[in-house]
Amino acid sequence: MGNDYRPMWESLGLDLEAHDQLLNVLPPTYGDVYLKQENRPDKMEYFDFVINEIHGLRIQELQEHKAKGGKVVGAYCVFVPEEIVRAAGGILVGLCSGVEIGSAQTEKVLPKNICSLIKSFMGFKLARVCPYLESCDLIVGETTCDGKKKAFEILNDYVPVHVLEIPQMRREKDRQFWFGELQDFLKTIEEYTGKKITPESLRRSIKEVNAKRRALLRLNELRKNGLLPISGKDSLLIEQIAMYDDVDRFTSQVNGLCEELERRVGEGKGVNKPDAPRIILTGTPMAIPNWKVSHLIESSGAVIVAEEMCTGLRYFENLVPEEGESVDQMLRFIADRYIKTNCACFTPNEGRTEELVRLAKDYKANGVINCSLIFCDPYMIEANRVENTLKDHGIPLLRIETDYGQEDSGQLKTRIEAFIEMIKG
Amino acid sequence: MGNDYRPMWESLGLDLEAHDQLLNVLPPTYGDVYLKQENRPDKMEYFDFVINEIHGLRIQELQEHKAKGGKVVGAYCVFVPEEIVRAAGGILVGLCSGVEIGSAQTEKVLPKNICSLIKSFMGFKLARVCPYLESCDLIVGETTCDGKKKAFEILNDYVPVHVLEIPQMRREKDRQFWFGELQDFLKTIEEYTGKKITPESLRRSIKEVNAKRRALLRLNELRKNGLLPISGKDSLLIEQIAMYDDVDRFTSQVNGLCEELERRVGEGKGVNKPDAPRIILTGTPMAIPNWKVSHLIESSGAVIVAEEMCTGLRYFENLVPEEGESVDQMLRFIADRYIKTNCACFTPNEGRTEELVRLAKDYKANGVINCSLIFCDPYMIEANRVENTLKDHGIPLLRIETDYGQEDSGQLKTRIEAFIEMIKG
Repeated sequence: MGNDYRPMWESLGLDLEAHDQLLNVLPPTYGDVYLKQENRPDKMEYFDFVINEIHGLRIQELQEHKAKGGKVVGAYCVFVPEEIVRAAGGILVGLCSGVEIGSAQTEKVLPKNICSLIKSFMGFKLARVCPYLESCDLIVGETTCDGKKKAFEILNDYVPVHVLEIPQMRREKDRQFWFGELQDFLKTIEEYTGKKITPESLRRSIKEVNAKRRALLRLNELRKNGLLPISGKDSLLIEQIAMYDDVDRFTSQVNGLCEELERRVGEGKGVNKPDAPRIILTGTPMAIPNWKVSHLIESSGAVIVAEEMCTGLRYFENLVPEEGESVDQMLRFIADRYIKTNCACFTPNEGRTEELVRLAKDYKANGVINCSLIFCDPYMIEANRVENTLKDHGIPLLRIETDYGQEDSGQLKTRIEAFIEMIKG
Repeated sequence: MGNDYRPMWESLGLDLEAHDQLLNVLPPTYGDVYLKQENRPDKMEYFDFVINEIHGLRIQELQEHKAKGGKVVGAYCVFVPEEIVRAAGGILVGLCSGVEIGSAQTEKVLPKNICSLIKSFMGFKLARVCPYLESCDLIVGETTCDGKKKAFEILNDYVPVHVLEIPQMRREKDRQFWFGELQDFLKTIEEYTGKKITPESLRRSIKEVNAKRRALLRLNELRKNGLLPISGKDSLLIEQIAMYDDVDRFTSQVNGLCEELERRVGEGKGVNKPDAPRIILTGTPMAIPNWKVSHLIESSGAVIVAEEMCTGLRYFENLVPEEGESVDQMLRFIADRYIKTNCACFTPNEGRTEELVRLAKDYKANGVINCSLIFCDPYMIEANRVENTLKDHGIPLLRIETDYGQEDSGQLKTRIEAFIEMIKG
């Protein structure tokens, strides 16, 4: 990192020693997974920079925002509407994390048999090593799964958590309930920020967040090409950074990258061999620095063409209509947009399996890899529905259950290589 | 069993060979756990008979009910209102089961890392060994946990399942949502049974189910005595049988037993040594024949005075007001009663921890044993809240995580004995 951020980290109450250890892990991993890729687009430089400054420059920006009276709101889920937070002058940051941390502290409050993502976010809090979390004025939790729902009760012992109740079905009355939940959320955000949300501010933030989505959609559209102008790993990285970077800058950088990628496509430049099997990745979200499975897949001669997950298409595939007039009307559009997210928390969740079939066709995929975090009941069980549907459509599927550890990498590599060989033949 | 029920089982489509194996397991277990108890009340004879006839007489009654045009509705949760099913002339039977079964079949559709209860009910269906399940015209599922919620999607491949959406909080709008959910449920039941629910039929069924609850409350009241007239194991058995036995007969039998128990109290007759430590059991439900932990506790010199669980107090501790006039008003009373259930599906669920403190006082308990099924996130995580609250009130707690296997019995026994020694001292 460029500057000396230690005084800032200290003022945020971080455990500097533990934090140093964490920061020492990231660069070698990133070097291995990202910087050794051949034929990378030049414009990936910005995203490399963002990762390099992950606990530096962006945190400094959050502090400057707070110094001017702005609020920072943290979330662990793509159901938390960024539009509402921004319309009240707040910044929303995604807090999910993809690394084992603070296990000793975490296992005092949480069971061992719980998914890595939840252990990780609790570990970051208890070990005091996440400057994003420590910058937050409010955490917004949600009820998407039992693990998170109940872990937020414990997290609330350490930091204020407002929990959004996500309905478990998507019938008309569930949509109505969800709309009411967002009406309450809007009031909560107004109270926390001390700023009234107006039709103007909400319309502006809808447009800004849509612009981010459009940039990501533009990027993803380019991944439908036979010769891919960008790797799946780089795409995942961008989708991860989308969750906490400055919205306007990020949008502009992604659009800049897309210009380069469009040129590449025109010039017939790509990152893959033309016959490389094309994979769609689906399942539980992959938070920074969880690049394990993507790296294994792309190191095995395949390319990932789309991520049907929360760190992926679900984050940006639907826009909020921009023609709303009143706050309530816009809120209705927001509610309708977010409830389309094909999370396994819904029963049933046919939208996801139908989407997978559609994506496999649109992205000319040769196979799907369904990757669940171990102990994630919604996705582990829903894998059965995915399996049945893909079988009906003759789309090959590999099911993986893994965690944030590296112990299973060898075994996963063998299974992924075998799957890729199988779909090649 | 008294009669030859094989033709009936065959007509229900059971796998007779697998079913024989299952039935061979129960009697020796029951003999060891129940029949060897000293100083049992005479009136336990009825409940021994019910267990002896578990797949016999009661199933025959269900078939006779169906032959007369009645419907049988199965449920896996105490949130499913028996009053509504009965008011339409139906019979509600609890289908939760407490034994490992059909693992080979189940692991083809469900992940391995899932709680025993869910594996068990799926196993009973896939192995075709549960005459209750095979007697059901409709299964009512619910969204109390991720595992069940998602497993019902798979169960629905084999038998029609209507899923009740349980809200995840208990604010006014959640209560309103729940009321609406029961309004829809009432219509579903009317459609399935072809019978209109009237104020008269609903009032009658409210009274009948309340009578069952009052009998169980009367029984539990007797467990507050220093000298217990009945063991915890026998009480648990009765609470388990409550879920599927004929309501009126069961009520009358429990009241008959209570008369004997009241005499015993008067005569100073009990099942425990006066200095035996008194334990409250709390956590995940214990379905027949899951008597493992209760047996370990009571074989270690302690007595169980109450079960703060769904197979226990939560099933009967709140009555539905009987003075409702319209169906809608009664339905409102029913909704309000059921949502009081202190299930760990709610966030927060302070009602449960407050109740535990109250129970410990009322039942003069020396300690609490919190028993969760392994992989049950809601209860495993909520154990932290239980631990904190009981610590604040100086109530000793032992936390156990177990499954339906017997492999951990030795280790559990050691831990339970150590806990009992500790609270004695």
